[in-house]
Amino acid sequence: MLFTSERRLDDGVLEREFTLDEIPGVLWTPGSVSTPAPLILMGHPGGLDMMYPRLAARARHAVGEGFAAATIELPGSGVRPRFAATEQARADLRRALEAGKPVDDEIIDRLVLPLVESAVPEWQAALDALLALPVIGGPVGFSGGVISIGIRLAVADSRISAALLFAGSFVPRSMLDEARRVTIPLQVLLQWDDEWNDRHMALDLFDAFGSPEKTLHANMGGHTGVPEFEGDAGNRFFARHLK
Amino acid sequence: MLFTSERRLDDGVLEREFTLDEIPGVLWTPGSVSTPAPLILMGHPGGLDMMYPRLAARARHAVGEGFAAATIELPGSGVRPRFAATEQARADLRRALEAGKPVDDEIIDRLVLPLVESAVPEWQAALDALLALPVIGGPVGFSGGVISIGIRLAVADSRISAALLFAGSFVPRSMLDEARRVTIPLQVLLQWDDEWNDRHMALDLFDAFGSPEKTLHANMGGHTGVPEFEGDAGNRFFARHLK
Repeated sequence: MLFTSERRLDDGVLEREFTLDEIPGVLWTPGSVSTPAPLILMGHPGGLDMMYPRLAARARHAVGEGFAAATIELPGSGVRPRFAATEQARADLRRALEAGKPVDDEIIDRLVLPLVESAVPEWQAALDALLALPVIGGPVGFSGGVISIGIRLAVADSRISAALLFAGSFVPRSMLDEARRVTIPLQVLLQWDDEWNDRHMALDLFDAFGSPEKTLHANMGGHTGVPEFEGDAGNRFFARHLK
Repeated sequence: MLFTSERRLDDGVLEREFTLDEIPGVLWTPGSVSTPAPLILMGHPGGLDMMYPRLAARARHAVGEGFAAATIELPGSGVRPRFAATEQARADLRRALEAGKPVDDEIIDRLVLPLVESAVPEWQAALDALLALPVIGGPVGFSGGVISIGIRLAVADSRISAALLFAGSFVPRSMLDEARRVTIPLQVLLQWDDEWNDRHMALDLFDAFGSPEKTLHANMGGHTGVPEFEGDAGNRFFARHLK
């Protein structure tokens, strides 16, 4: 893990960019740290530069509540090399959506499953590096999307103690079975009229999770309309489980 | 409104019992009041004495956050005279549930609609009396069940500014139309495996509400299993809308 830049934001938060095996990432930590902070891994749909304003806002909010926050770029997004198969699946998805047709399961599988396969080991490697830093103590939460990455991480890595998942992306059917094996506390955000997400599929997915403690927060509006107060609700969820 | 008893609880909260046209009620207010407090009307399924421990806990939590809280007995419950037709409907409902059969809509109509008709004017009269007290300033929220009473109140009384509704009771189909006319901010609690409540009906009801701001909080477990953290979430919801 190589830190490539460091700056102090106006609220005192320390923001550091890093690379890890050529994967870019960002780490946000409290301005002054007396004890190692629990960590929130911030998921996103890919494209760190484009997502930066929203990610940084979420991260600073979390750091204000005593957490550290970190994220890395997804495979095939941002400055990272594209995958032809993924680009093809993305184009097929766009075409289906523009035609107003239901999206074939096989398109979603082609788009999401290879992404999960390649991204999850990278997030785990980032976790190894981040937990080795003296400012970060664990436990660890995962917050955001891609929800399938969050599901796989929750199943595959016992260091993830709680997850706030955004039911805002297409989910391969096979992830339903994987969801049954998730047992950590979950808070799941659902936008009731999400144009990128089937509501019934999202409710089925919520139902499938094996976690004894899981809470669904459904709000009105489309994909990008998550209300600001869910930031607070998310921090409270993580405070209950990571502190 | 006649106050019949007054005591100070160990957290300083002032608890006063009252009667209003022979309807018993309870009012909880902060120990010391500098400015009039916003009011939360605490709904319940009927039977104040039996419900007292849970209601008092919710009320004290709310008062700790700067609200006043009040409740009154429902028609046909607790010390109030029974209605033969309601008792018959309740017996029919019990029989259907014990037989494991789906509950006929007409049983739910017979049970709930007359209750809503008679209860809502009583809650409005209580509101008249409570808002005349110098310690209470408004605005007003409704919190709890019976959800059909909350819906009717939200439609019929413009003094209700926000409602936290518990989707934990049988709801007449006609209330779906009434729900479309609700426009105040809502937070709706749903117990995912509520033995008294059909999940799909509850989701349809949530979908029907006309409110531009509505949030569903679905948690695991049965009817009485609402997690403690929802008390906090409820107070935050009311703080956003009543303060």
